[in-house]
Amino acid sequence: MNFNEKYESYKLTVENGIRNFIENLNCHEQLKASMSYSLLAGGKRVRPVMFLACLETLGVDFTNYINLAVAIECVHTYSLIHDDLPALDNDDFRRGRPSNHKVFGEGFAVLAGDALLNSAFELALDSVDSKGSLEAVKYLMNCAGAFGMINGQAYDLYYEDKTVDDKENLLFTIHEFKTGKLLTAPLVMASLIANGKYLDELTKIGHLTGKLFQFSDDLLDITGTFEDMGKTLGKDDYAGKLTAVSVYGKEGTISHIEKMHSDIVKILKNIDNNLFFIEFYDYIKNRKN
Amino acid sequence: MNFNEKYESYKLTVENGIRNFIENLNCHEQLKASMSYSLLAGGKRVRPVMFLACLETLGVDFTNYINLAVAIECVHTYSLIHDDLPALDNDDFRRGRPSNHKVFGEGFAVLAGDALLNSAFELALDSVDSKGSLEAVKYLMNCAGAFGMINGQAYDLYYEDKTVDDKENLLFTIHEFKTGKLLTAPLVMASLIANGKYLDELTKIGHLTGKLFQFSDDLLDITGTFEDMGKTLGKDDYAGKLTAVSVYGKEGTISHIEKMHSDIVKILKNIDNNLFFIEFYDYIKNRKN
Repeated sequence: MNFNEKYESYKLTVENGIRNFIENLNCHEQLKASMSYSLLAGGKRVRPVMFLACLETLGVDFTNYINLAVAIECVHTYSLIHDDLPALDNDDFRRGRPSNHKVFGEGFAVLAGDALLNSAFELALDSVDSKGSLEAVKYLMNCAGAFGMINGQAYDLYYEDKTVDDKENLLFTIHEFKTGKLLTAPLVMASLIANGKYLDELTKIGHLTGKLFQFSDDLLDITGTFEDMGKTLGKDDYAGKLTAVSVYGKEGTISHIEKMHSDIVKILKNIDNNLFFIEFYDYIKNRKN
Repeated sequence: MNFNEKYESYKLTVENGIRNFIENLNCHEQLKASMSYSLLAGGKRVRPVMFLACLETLGVDFTNYINLAVAIECVHTYSLIHDDLPALDNDDFRRGRPSNHKVFGEGFAVLAGDALLNSAFELALDSVDSKGSLEAVKYLMNCAGAFGMINGQAYDLYYEDKTVDDKENLLFTIHEFKTGKLLTAPLVMASLIANGKYLDELTKIGHLTGKLFQFSDDLLDITGTFEDMGKTLGKDDYAGKLTAVSVYGKEGTISHIEKMHSDIVKILKNIDNNLFFIEFYDYIKNRKN
Protein backbone atom coordinates (compact mmCIF):
# COMPACT_ATOMS: atom_id res chain seq x y z
CA MET A 1 0.00 0.00 0.00
CA ASN A 2 1.22 3.51 -0.73
CA PHE A 3 0.85 6.30 1.83
CA ASN A 4 -2.61 7.43 0.71
CA GLU A 5 -3.97 3.89 0.78
CA LYS A 6 -2.44 3.26 4.19
CA TYR A 7 -3.86 6.54 5.54
CA GLU A 8 -7.31 5.69 4.15
CA SER A 9 -7.14 2.25 5.70
CA TYR A 10 -6.45 3.68 9.20
CA LYS A 11 -9.14 6.29 8.60
CA LEU A 12 -11.65 3.61 7.64
CA THR A 13 -10.90 1.75 10.88
CA VAL A 14 -11.59 4.98 12.78
CA GLU A 15 -14.79 5.67 10.80
CA ASN A 16 -16.06 2.18 11.53
CA GLY A 17 -15.30 2.65 15.22
CA ILE A 18 -17.18 5.96 15.20
CA ARG A 19 -20.20 4.40 13.46
CA ASN A 20 -20.20 1.57 15.96
CA PHE A 21 -20.12 4.09 18.82
CA ILE A 22 -23.03 6.07 17.35
CA GLU A 23 -25.12 2.96 16.71
CA ASN A 24 -24.82 2.03 20.37
CA LEU A 25 -25.73 5.53 21.60
CA ASN A 26 -28.85 5.04 23.60
CA CYS A 27 -30.09 8.57 24.34
CA HIS A 28 -32.62 11.19 23.27
CA GLU A 29 -32.82 11.40 19.47
CA GLN A 30 -31.97 15.11 19.32
CA LEU A 31 -28.87 14.65 21.48
CA LYS A 32 -27.81 11.70 19.33
CA ALA A 33 -28.44 13.71 16.16
CA SER A 34 -26.39 16.63 17.45
CA MET A 35 -23.48 14.39 18.51
CA SER A 36 -23.58 12.44 15.21
CA TYR A 37 -23.77 15.60 13.09
CA SER A 38 -20.37 16.77 14.30
CA LEU A 39 -18.77 13.35 14.64
CA LEU A 40 -19.74 12.50 11.06
CA ALA A 41 -18.82 15.88 9.58
CA GLY A 42 -15.88 14.30 7.83
CA GLY A 43 -12.50 15.67 8.65
CA LYS A 44 -9.19 13.94 8.25
CA ARG A 45 -9.27 12.03 11.57
CA VAL A 46 -5.63 13.02 11.94
CA ARG A 47 -5.33 12.34 15.69
CA PRO A 48 -6.81 8.82 15.77
CA VAL A 49 -5.00 7.92 12.52
CA MET A 50 -1.69 9.04 14.11
CA PHE A 51 -2.51 6.92 17.16
CA LEU A 52 -3.27 3.73 15.21
CA ALA A 53 -0.33 4.25 12.86
CA CYS A 54 2.03 4.86 15.77
CA LEU A 55 0.84 1.71 17.55
CA GLU A 56 1.54 -0.25 14.36
CA THR A 57 4.92 1.45 13.94
CA LEU A 58 5.77 0.28 17.47
CA GLY A 59 4.67 -3.27 16.71
CA VAL A 60 1.44 -3.22 18.77
CA ASP A 61 -1.73 -4.86 17.42
CA PHE A 62 -4.20 -1.95 17.51
CA THR A 63 -7.44 -3.94 17.37
CA ASN A 64 -7.87 -3.64 21.15
CA TYR A 65 -7.47 0.12 21.04
CA ILE A 66 -9.93 1.24 18.37
CA ASN A 67 -12.28 2.64 21.01
CA LEU A 68 -9.40 4.63 22.41
CA ALA A 69 -8.81 6.06 18.92
CA VAL A 70 -12.51 6.97 18.79
CA ALA A 71 -12.17 8.55 22.25
CA ILE A 72 -9.42 10.86 20.94
CA GLU A 73 -11.69 11.94 18.07
CA CYS A 74 -14.59 12.51 20.50
CA VAL A 75 -12.41 14.86 22.58
CA HIS A 76 -11.37 16.74 19.43
CA THR A 77 -14.96 16.96 18.15
CA TYR A 78 -16.40 18.19 21.45
CA SER A 79 -13.73 20.91 21.56
CA LEU A 80 -14.71 22.12 18.08
CA ILE A 81 -18.42 22.25 18.97
CA HIS A 82 -17.81 24.30 22.11
CA ASP A 83 -15.15 26.47 20.46
CA ASP A 84 -17.58 27.40 17.66
CA LEU A 85 -20.18 28.70 20.16
CA PRO A 86 -20.99 32.42 19.99
CA ALA A 87 -19.50 32.92 23.47
CA LEU A 88 -16.17 31.49 22.29
CA ASP A 89 -14.89 31.68 18.70
CA ASN A 90 -18.36 32.35 17.23
CA ASP A 91 -17.91 30.35 14.02
CA ASP A 92 -20.95 29.74 11.82
CA PHE A 93 -19.23 27.18 9.61
CA ARG A 94 -17.16 24.09 10.25
CA ARG A 95 -15.98 21.66 7.59
CA GLY A 96 -18.15 23.32 4.95
CA ARG A 97 -21.38 22.93 6.91
CA PRO A 98 -23.18 25.13 9.43
CA SER A 99 -21.63 24.60 12.85
CA ASN A 100 -23.44 22.51 15.45
CA HIS A 101 -25.21 25.35 17.28
CA LYS A 102 -26.47 26.81 14.00
CA VAL A 103 -28.31 23.52 13.33
CA PHE A 104 -29.30 22.29 16.80
CA GLY A 105 -29.28 25.50 18.85
CA GLU A 106 -26.79 26.51 21.50
CA GLY A 107 -28.37 24.37 24.21
CA PHE A 108 -27.93 21.13 22.30
CA ALA A 109 -24.46 22.20 21.15
CA VAL A 110 -23.41 22.58 24.79
CA LEU A 111 -24.95 19.21 25.70
CA ALA A 112 -23.57 17.39 22.64
CA GLY A 113 -20.08 18.67 23.50
CA ASP A 114 -20.46 17.59 27.12
CA ALA A 115 -21.75 14.19 26.04
CA LEU A 116 -18.85 13.66 23.61
CA LEU A 117 -16.28 14.50 26.30
CA ASN A 118 -18.04 12.16 28.71
CA SER A 119 -18.27 9.45 26.05
CA ALA A 120 -14.56 9.82 25.40
CA PHE A 121 -13.94 8.87 29.05
CA GLU A 122 -16.26 5.91 28.80
CA LEU A 123 -14.70 4.64 25.57
CA ALA A 124 -11.20 5.19 26.94
CA LEU A 125 -11.95 3.35 30.17
CA ASP A 126 -13.28 0.37 28.22
CA SER A 127 -9.89 0.17 26.49
CA VAL A 128 -7.90 -0.22 29.69
CA ASP A 129 -6.32 -3.69 29.69
CA SER A 130 -2.85 -3.01 31.08
CA LYS A 131 -0.82 -0.60 33.17
CA GLY A 132 0.42 1.06 29.97
CA SER A 133 -3.08 1.60 28.59
CA LEU A 134 -4.25 3.09 31.92
CA GLU A 135 -1.31 5.51 31.68
CA ALA A 136 -2.29 6.30 28.10
CA VAL A 137 -5.86 7.14 29.17
CA LYS A 138 -4.57 9.36 31.97
CA TYR A 139 -2.27 11.11 29.51
CA LEU A 140 -5.15 11.77 27.09
CA MET A 141 -7.33 13.26 29.82
CA ASN A 142 -4.46 15.37 31.07
CA CYS A 143 -3.86 16.71 27.54
CA ALA A 144 -7.56 17.49 27.17
CA GLY A 145 -8.11 19.18 30.53
CA ALA A 146 -7.46 22.30 32.60
CA PHE A 147 -3.72 21.99 32.11
CA GLY A 148 -4.13 20.96 28.48
CA MET A 149 -6.42 21.95 25.65
CA ILE A 150 -8.94 23.82 27.82
CA ASN A 151 -6.11 25.91 29.25
CA GLY A 152 -5.23 26.97 25.71
CA GLN A 153 -8.83 27.94 25.04
CA ALA A 154 -8.81 29.97 28.26
CA TYR A 155 -5.67 31.88 27.20
CA ASP A 156 -7.15 32.42 23.75
CA LEU A 157 -10.43 33.75 25.15
CA TYR A 158 -8.83 35.88 27.84
CA TYR A 159 -6.44 37.70 25.51
CA GLU A 160 -8.84 38.05 22.58
CA ASP A 161 -9.57 41.71 23.38
CA LYS A 162 -6.31 42.61 25.17
CA THR A 163 -3.01 43.95 23.89
CA VAL A 164 0.14 42.19 25.06
CA ASP A 165 3.81 43.05 24.95
CA ASP A 166 5.25 39.61 24.34
CA LYS A 167 3.09 38.40 21.47
CA GLU A 168 5.45 35.59 20.52
CA ASN A 169 5.40 34.06 23.97
CA LEU A 170 1.61 34.25 24.19
CA LEU A 171 1.27 32.71 20.74
CA PHE A 172 3.47 29.79 21.78
CA THR A 173 1.49 29.27 24.98
CA ILE A 174 -1.84 29.21 23.13
CA HIS A 175 -0.48 26.86 20.46
CA GLU A 176 1.16 24.55 22.96
CA PHE A 177 -2.06 24.03 24.90
CA LYS A 178 -4.96 24.60 22.54
CA THR A 179 -3.69 22.59 19.58
CA GLY A 180 -0.44 21.05 20.68
CA LYS A 181 -1.54 18.91 23.58
CA LEU A 182 -4.09 16.86 21.65
CA LEU A 183 -1.65 16.39 18.76
CA THR A 184 1.09 15.23 21.12
CA ALA A 185 -1.28 12.79 22.82
CA PRO A 186 -1.68 10.14 20.07
CA LEU A 187 2.07 9.52 19.77
CA VAL A 188 2.80 9.53 23.52
CA MET A 189 -0.25 7.35 24.22
CA ALA A 190 0.93 4.80 21.65
CA SER A 191 4.37 4.78 23.25
CA LEU A 192 2.89 4.31 26.75
CA ILE A 193 0.87 1.33 25.51
CA ALA A 194 4.09 -0.07 23.97
CA ASN A 195 5.75 0.12 27.42
CA GLY A 196 7.44 3.47 26.75
CA LYS A 197 9.15 2.53 23.47
CA TYR A 198 10.72 5.66 21.87
CA LEU A 199 8.96 7.78 24.52
CA ASP A 200 11.48 10.67 24.35
CA GLU A 201 11.51 10.79 20.56
CA LEU A 202 7.74 10.58 20.22
CA THR A 203 7.17 13.23 22.90
CA LYS A 204 9.48 15.63 21.06
CA ILE A 205 7.85 14.89 17.71
CA GLY A 206 4.44 15.33 19.35
CA HIS A 207 5.28 18.82 20.59
CA LEU A 208 6.63 19.83 17.19
CA THR A 209 3.53 18.38 15.51
CA GLY A 210 1.28 20.71 17.49
CA LYS A 211 3.24 23.76 16.40
CA LEU A 212 3.49 22.54 12.82
CA PHE A 213 -0.28 22.15 12.60
CA GLN A 214 -1.03 25.51 14.12
CA PHE A 215 1.45 27.37 11.94
CA SER A 216 0.16 25.72 8.78
CA ASP A 217 -3.44 26.37 9.94
CA ASP A 218 -2.65 30.03 10.39
CA LEU A 219 -0.97 30.13 6.99
CA LEU A 220 -3.96 28.43 5.35
CA ASP A 221 -6.22 31.01 6.97
CA ILE A 222 -4.69 33.60 4.61
CA THR A 223 -3.75 31.42 1.61
CA GLY A 224 -6.51 28.77 1.55
CA THR A 225 -9.91 28.86 -0.06
CA PHE A 226 -13.36 28.33 1.50
CA GLU A 227 -13.86 25.32 -0.81
CA ASP A 228 -10.67 23.59 0.40
CA MET A 229 -11.06 24.54 4.04
CA GLY A 230 -14.83 24.38 4.56
CA LYS A 231 -14.84 27.36 6.91
CA THR A 232 -14.78 31.13 6.83
CA LEU A 233 -11.22 32.34 6.19
CA GLY A 234 -9.40 35.51 7.06
CA LYS A 235 -11.55 35.64 10.21
CA ASP A 236 -8.54 35.52 12.54
CA ASP A 237 -7.09 38.53 10.78
CA TYR A 238 -10.41 40.36 10.86
CA ALA A 239 -10.80 39.64 14.57
CA GLY A 240 -7.30 40.99 15.23
CA LYS A 241 -6.36 37.59 16.57
CA LEU A 242 -2.85 36.55 17.39
CA THR A 243 -1.64 34.08 14.74
CA ALA A 244 1.72 32.86 13.43
CA VAL A 245 1.21 35.12 10.41
CA SER A 246 0.47 38.20 12.53
CA VAL A 247 3.68 37.60 14.52
CA TYR A 248 6.11 36.32 11.83
CA GLY A 249 4.50 37.43 8.57
CA LYS A 250 3.75 35.02 5.71
CA GLU A 251 7.35 34.29 4.74
CA GLY A 252 8.47 33.95 8.37
CA THR A 253 5.66 31.48 9.00
CA ILE A 254 6.67 29.43 5.96
CA SER A 255 10.30 29.19 7.10
CA HIS A 256 9.21 28.18 10.60
CA ILE A 257 7.13 25.41 9.02
CA GLU A 258 10.15 24.22 6.99
CA LYS A 259 12.34 24.19 10.11
CA MET A 260 9.83 22.25 12.24
CA HIS A 261 9.33 19.74 9.47
CA SER A 262 13.05 19.10 9.13
CA ASP A 263 13.44 18.78 12.95
CA ILE A 264 10.69 16.17 12.98
CA VAL A 265 12.25 14.20 10.14
CA LYS A 266 15.62 14.26 11.92
CA ILE A 267 14.12 12.63 15.03
CA LEU A 268 12.01 10.22 12.99
CA LYS A 269 15.19 8.80 11.41
CA ASN A 270 16.06 7.27 14.83
CA ILE A 271 12.81 5.32 14.86
CA ASP A 272 12.48 1.93 13.15
CA ASN A 273 9.73 1.35 10.66
CA ASN A 274 9.25 5.09 10.15
CA LEU A 275 8.07 5.20 6.52
CA PHE A 276 4.43 6.04 7.21
CA PHE A 277 5.33 8.97 9.44
CA ILE A 278 8.00 10.33 7.09
CA GLU A 279 5.34 10.52 4.37
CA PHE A 280 2.73 11.73 6.87
CA TYR A 281 4.76 14.81 7.79
CA ASP A 282 5.40 15.59 4.13
CA TYR A 283 1.66 15.48 3.62
CA ILE A 284 1.04 17.75 6.64
CA LYS A 285 3.61 20.29 5.47
CA ASN A 286 2.04 20.48 2.02
CA ARG A 287 -1.64 20.22 2.98
CA LYS A 288 -4.27 22.44 1.39
CA ASN A 289 -6.87 21.95 4.14
CA MET B 1 -21.27 12.26 67.29
CA ASN B 2 -24.88 13.06 66.47
CA PHE B 3 -26.13 13.17 62.87
CA ASN B 4 -25.33 16.84 62.27
CA GLU B 5 -21.80 16.48 63.59
CA LYS B 6 -21.24 13.36 61.52
CA TYR B 7 -22.58 15.06 58.39
CA GLU B 8 -20.36 18.09 59.00
CA SER B 9 -17.35 15.85 59.50
CA TYR B 10 -17.88 14.12 56.10
CA LYS B 11 -18.54 17.52 54.55
CA LEU B 12 -15.29 18.91 55.99
CA THR B 13 -13.38 15.98 54.45
CA VAL B 14 -14.96 16.82 51.08
CA GLU B 15 -14.22 20.57 51.47
CA ASN B 16 -10.59 19.82 52.26
CA GLY B 17 -10.38 17.56 49.22
CA ILE B 18 -11.85 20.32 47.05
CA ARG B 19 -9.42 22.93 48.41
CA ASN B 20 -6.54 20.57 47.79
CA PHE B 21 -7.74 20.06 44.21
CA ILE B 22 -8.01 23.82 43.62
CA GLU B 23 -4.59 24.54 45.12
CA ASN B 24 -3.04 22.13 42.65
CA LEU B 25 -4.89 23.58 39.65
CA ASN B 26 -2.16 24.79 37.36
CA CYS B 27 -3.98 26.76 34.67
CA HIS B 28 -4.87 30.29 33.53
CA GLU B 29 -5.98 32.42 36.51
CA GLN B 30 -9.36 33.27 35.01
CA LEU B 31 -10.17 29.62 34.32
CA LYS B 32 -9.10 28.71 37.84
CA ALA B 33 -11.18 31.57 39.27
CA SER B 34 -14.24 30.48 37.33
CA MET B 35 -13.87 26.82 38.38
CA SER B 36 -13.23 27.79 42.03
CA TYR B 37 -16.15 30.22 42.15
CA SER B 38 -18.66 27.46 41.50
CA LEU B 39 -16.83 24.71 43.39
CA LEU B 40 -16.61 26.93 46.48
CA ALA B 41 -20.16 28.27 46.26
CA GLY B 42 -21.09 26.25 49.31
CA GLY B 43 -23.86 23.77 48.87
CA LYS B 44 -24.52 20.71 50.99
CA ARG B 45 -22.06 18.40 49.20
CA VAL B 46 -24.81 15.77 49.41
CA ARG B 47 -23.41 13.42 46.76
CA PRO B 48 -19.82 13.14 48.04
CA VAL B 49 -21.06 12.99 51.65
CA MET B 50 -23.37 10.09 50.71
CA PHE B 51 -20.43 8.38 49.02
CA LEU B 52 -18.06 8.68 52.01
CA ALA B 53 -20.80 7.78 54.50
CA CYS B 54 -21.80 4.75 52.45
CA LEU B 55 -18.19 3.54 52.23
CA GLU B 56 -17.97 3.82 56.01
CA THR B 57 -21.33 2.08 56.46
CA LEU B 58 -19.93 -0.79 54.37
CA GLY B 59 -16.75 -0.94 56.47
CA VAL B 60 -14.39 0.54 53.86
CA ASP B 61 -11.69 3.03 54.92
CA PHE B 62 -12.51 6.03 52.70
CA THR B 63 -9.16 7.83 52.92
CA ASN B 64 -8.09 6.40 49.54
CA TYR B 65 -11.28 7.62 47.87
CA ILE B 66 -11.48 11.29 48.83
CA ASN B 67 -10.48 12.34 45.31
CA LEU B 68 -13.27 10.17 43.96
CA ALA B 69 -15.69 12.02 46.27
CA VAL B 70 -14.32 15.32 44.90
CA ALA B 71 -14.77 13.94 41.37
CA ILE B 72 -18.49 13.37 42.05
CA GLU B 73 -18.84 16.98 43.25
CA CYS B 74 -16.95 18.23 40.16
CA VAL B 75 -19.42 16.43 37.88
CA HIS B 76 -22.34 17.93 39.81
CA THR B 77 -20.83 21.44 39.76
CA TYR B 78 -20.05 21.39 36.04
CA SER B 79 -23.63 20.32 35.32
CA LEU B 80 -24.97 23.30 37.30
CA ILE B 81 -22.71 25.77 35.48
CA HIS B 82 -23.77 24.53 32.05
CA ASP B 83 -27.42 24.14 33.07
CA ASP B 84 -27.54 27.79 34.22
CA LEU B 85 -26.36 29.06 30.80
CA PRO B 86 -28.84 31.23 28.87
CA ALA B 87 -29.11 28.54 26.18
CA LEU B 88 -30.23 25.98 28.78
CA ASP B 89 -32.09 26.87 32.00
CA ASN B 90 -31.02 30.54 31.91
CA ASP B 91 -30.63 31.02 35.65
CA ASP B 92 -29.05 34.23 36.92
CA PHE B 93 -28.65 33.00 40.49
CA ARG B 94 -27.27 29.87 42.09
CA ARG B 95 -26.81 29.34 45.83
CA GLY B 96 -27.57 32.98 46.57
CA ARG B 97 -24.89 34.35 44.25
CA PRO B 98 -24.86 35.34 40.57
CA SER B 99 -24.40 32.22 38.45
CA ASN B 100 -21.03 31.51 36.86
CA HIS B 101 -21.70 33.07 33.45
CA LYS B 102 -23.02 36.27 35.08
CA VAL B 103 -19.63 36.73 36.74
CA PHE B 104 -17.14 35.28 34.23
CA GLY B 105 -19.07 35.50 30.96
CA GLU B 106 -20.54 32.65 28.96
CA GLY B 107 -17.23 31.68 27.37
CA PHE B 108 -15.50 31.03 30.67
CA ALA B 109 -18.63 29.34 32.04
CA VAL B 110 -18.50 26.85 29.15
CA LEU B 111 -14.77 26.27 29.67
CA ALA B 112 -15.01 26.01 33.47
CA GLY B 113 -17.74 23.39 33.09
CA ASP B 114 -15.69 21.45 30.55
CA ALA B 115 -12.62 21.66 32.78
CA LEU B 116 -14.53 20.42 35.83
CA LEU B 117 -15.90 17.42 33.93
CA ASN B 118 -12.43 16.66 32.63
CA SER B 119 -10.93 17.11 36.11
CA ALA B 120 -13.54 14.76 37.54
CA PHE B 121 -12.25 12.11 35.24
CA GLU B 122 -8.62 12.79 36.15
CA LEU B 123 -9.38 12.70 39.89
CA ALA B 124 -11.43 9.55 39.48
CA LEU B 125 -8.69 7.77 37.53
CA ASP B 126 -6.16 8.61 40.24
CA SER B 127 -8.41 6.77 42.70
CA VAL B 128 -8.36 3.49 40.82
CA ASP B 129 -6.58 0.93 42.99
CA SER B 130 -8.71 -2.18 42.45
CA LYS B 131 -11.15 -3.85 40.09
CA GLY B 132 -14.02 -2.56 42.24
CA SER B 133 -12.81 1.04 42.14
CA LEU B 134 -12.39 0.86 38.34
CA GLU B 135 -16.01 -0.35 38.13
CA ALA B 136 -17.04 2.53 40.41
CA VAL B 137 -15.36 5.08 38.11
CA LYS B 138 -17.05 3.54 35.07
CA TYR B 139 -20.39 3.69 36.87
CA LEU B 140 -19.91 7.37 37.71
CA MET B 141 -19.07 8.27 34.12
CA ASN B 142 -22.00 6.27 32.84
CA CYS B 143 -24.35 8.08 35.24
CA ALA B 144 -22.95 11.44 34.13
CA GLY B 145 -23.04 10.85 30.38
CA ALA B 146 -25.23 10.53 27.31
CA PHE B 147 -27.28 7.76 28.89
CA GLY B 148 -27.24 9.47 32.28
CA MET B 149 -27.48 13.04 33.48
CA ILE B 150 -26.90 14.65 30.07
CA ASN B 151 -29.73 12.57 28.63
CA GLY B 152 -32.03 14.06 31.26
CA GLN B 153 -30.91 17.56 30.33
CA ALA B 154 -31.60 16.74 26.68
CA TYR B 155 -35.17 15.59 27.46
CA ASP B 156 -35.69 18.65 29.62
CA LEU B 157 -34.46 21.01 26.90
CA TYR B 158 -36.28 19.28 24.06
CA TYR B 159 -39.69 19.29 25.73
CA GLU B 160 -39.40 22.75 27.29
CA ASP B 161 -41.58 24.35 24.65
CA LYS B 162 -43.63 21.30 23.61
CA THR B 163 -46.91 19.90 24.91
CA VAL B 164 -47.03 16.18 25.69
CA ASP B 165 -49.83 13.73 26.37
CA ASP B 166 -48.14 11.59 28.99
CA LYS B 167 -46.77 14.22 31.35
CA GLU B 168 -46.23 11.77 34.18
CA ASN B 169 -44.05 9.49 32.10
CA LEU B 170 -41.98 12.38 30.77
CA LEU B 171 -41.55 13.76 34.30
CA PHE B 172 -40.25 10.39 35.50
CA THR B 173 -37.84 10.13 32.58
CA ILE B 174 -36.39 13.60 33.21
CA HIS B 175 -36.09 12.96 36.96
CA GLU B 176 -34.56 9.55 36.49
CA PHE B 177 -31.78 10.86 34.28
CA LYS B 178 -31.22 14.50 35.12
CA THR B 179 -31.21 14.22 38.91
CA GLY B 180 -31.57 10.56 39.68
CA LYS B 181 -28.48 9.12 38.05
CA LEU B 182 -25.97 11.24 39.96
CA LEU B 183 -27.78 10.62 43.24
CA THR B 184 -27.80 6.87 42.62
CA ALA B 185 -24.10 6.90 41.78
CA PRO B 186 -22.57 7.53 45.26
CA LEU B 187 -24.33 4.55 46.84
CA VAL B 188 -23.71 2.14 43.98
CA MET B 189 -20.09 3.28 43.63
CA ALA B 190 -19.49 2.65 47.34
CA SER B 191 -21.00 -0.81 46.99
CA LEU B 192 -18.82 -1.59 43.94
CA ILE B 193 -15.72 -0.58 45.89
CA ALA B 194 -16.89 -2.85 48.72
CA ASN B 195 -17.04 -5.78 46.27
CA GLY B 196 -20.78 -5.45 45.63
CA LYS B 197 -21.93 -5.50 49.26
CA TYR B 198 -25.70 -4.69 49.45
CA LEU B 199 -25.60 -3.82 45.74
CA ASP B 200 -29.31 -4.55 45.12
CA GLU B 201 -30.48 -2.65 48.17
CA LEU B 202 -28.25 0.37 47.52
CA THR B 203 -29.23 0.50 43.84
CA LYS B 204 -32.92 0.57 44.80
CA ILE B 205 -32.35 3.22 47.46
CA GLY B 206 -30.29 5.22 44.96
CA HIS B 207 -33.13 5.29 42.43
CA LEU B 208 -35.62 6.35 45.10
CA THR B 209 -33.20 9.03 46.34
CA GLY B 210 -33.15 10.68 42.92
CA LYS B 211 -36.93 10.91 42.85
CA LEU B 212 -37.13 12.02 46.47
CA PHE B 213 -34.73 14.90 45.81
CA GLN B 214 -36.48 16.04 42.67
CA PHE B 215 -39.95 15.92 44.21
CA SER B 216 -38.78 17.85 47.28
CA ASP B 217 -36.93 20.32 45.02
CA ASP B 218 -40.10 20.90 43.04
CA LEU B 219 -42.06 21.34 46.27
CA LEU B 220 -39.49 23.81 47.62
CA ASP B 221 -39.77 25.77 44.37
CA ILE B 222 -43.30 26.77 45.46
CA THR B 223 -42.98 26.68 49.29
CA GLY B 224 -39.36 27.80 49.88
CA THR B 225 -37.94 31.29 50.18
CA PHE B 226 -35.13 32.96 48.21
CA GLU B 227 -33.17 33.32 51.46
CA ASP B 228 -33.32 29.58 52.24
CA MET B 229 -32.82 28.43 48.66
CA GLY B 230 -30.41 31.01 47.27
CA LYS B 231 -32.06 31.04 43.85
CA THR B 232 -35.03 32.51 42.06
CA LEU B 233 -38.15 30.54 42.97
CA GLY B 234 -41.43 29.96 41.17
CA LYS B 235 -39.43 30.08 37.93
CA ASP B 236 -40.41 26.56 36.92
CA ASP B 237 -44.06 27.49 37.27
CA TYR B 238 -43.54 30.73 35.38
CA ALA B 239 -41.74 28.91 32.57
CA GLY B 240 -44.61 26.40 32.34
CA LYS B 241 -42.10 23.67 33.17
CA LEU B 242 -43.09 20.14 34.00
CA THR B 243 -42.58 19.56 37.73
CA ALA B 244 -43.93 17.13 40.33
CA VAL B 245 -46.22 19.91 41.56
CA SER B 246 -47.60 20.64 38.09
CA VAL B 247 -48.42 16.94 37.63
CA TYR B 248 -49.55 15.89 41.14
CA GLY B 249 -50.39 19.20 42.84
CA LYS B 250 -48.89 20.25 46.18
CA GLU B 251 -50.67 17.66 48.34
CA GLY B 252 -50.02 14.87 45.83
CA THR B 253 -46.33 15.75 45.77
CA ILE B 254 -46.16 15.67 49.57
CA SER B 255 -47.73 12.21 49.75
CA HIS B 256 -45.37 10.90 47.06
CA ILE B 257 -42.46 12.20 49.17
CA GLU B 258 -43.83 10.41 52.27
CA LYS B 259 -44.20 7.16 50.33
CA MET B 260 -40.67 7.28 48.84
CA HIS B 261 -39.21 8.06 52.23
CA SER B 262 -40.93 5.10 53.86
CA ASP B 263 -39.87 2.79 50.99
CA ILE B 264 -36.26 3.87 51.49
CA VAL B 265 -36.41 3.31 55.25
CA LYS B 266 -37.91 -0.15 54.70
CA ILE B 267 -34.91 -1.18 52.53
CA LEU B 268 -32.41 0.52 54.84
CA LYS B 269 -33.58 -1.72 57.70
CA ASN B 270 -31.96 -4.69 55.90
CA ILE B 271 -28.57 -2.96 55.95
CA ASP B 272 -26.24 -3.19 58.96
CA ASN B 273 -24.90 -0.03 60.54
CA ASN B 274 -27.67 2.06 58.95
CA LEU B 275 -28.08 4.82 61.55
CA PHE B 276 -26.47 7.61 59.57
CA PHE B 277 -28.62 6.95 56.52
CA ILE B 278 -31.86 6.59 58.52
CA GLU B 279 -31.24 10.07 59.90
CA PHE B 280 -29.99 11.34 56.54
CA TYR B 281 -33.27 10.50 54.80
CA ASP B 282 -35.26 12.14 57.61
CA TYR B 283 -33.18 15.26 57.05
CA ILE B 284 -33.73 15.13 53.27
CA LYS B 285 -37.49 14.71 53.68
CA ASN B 286 -37.71 17.73 55.98
CA ARG B 287 -35.13 19.99 54.30
CA LYS B 288 -35.80 23.69 53.75
CA ASN B 289 -33.16 24.15 51.03
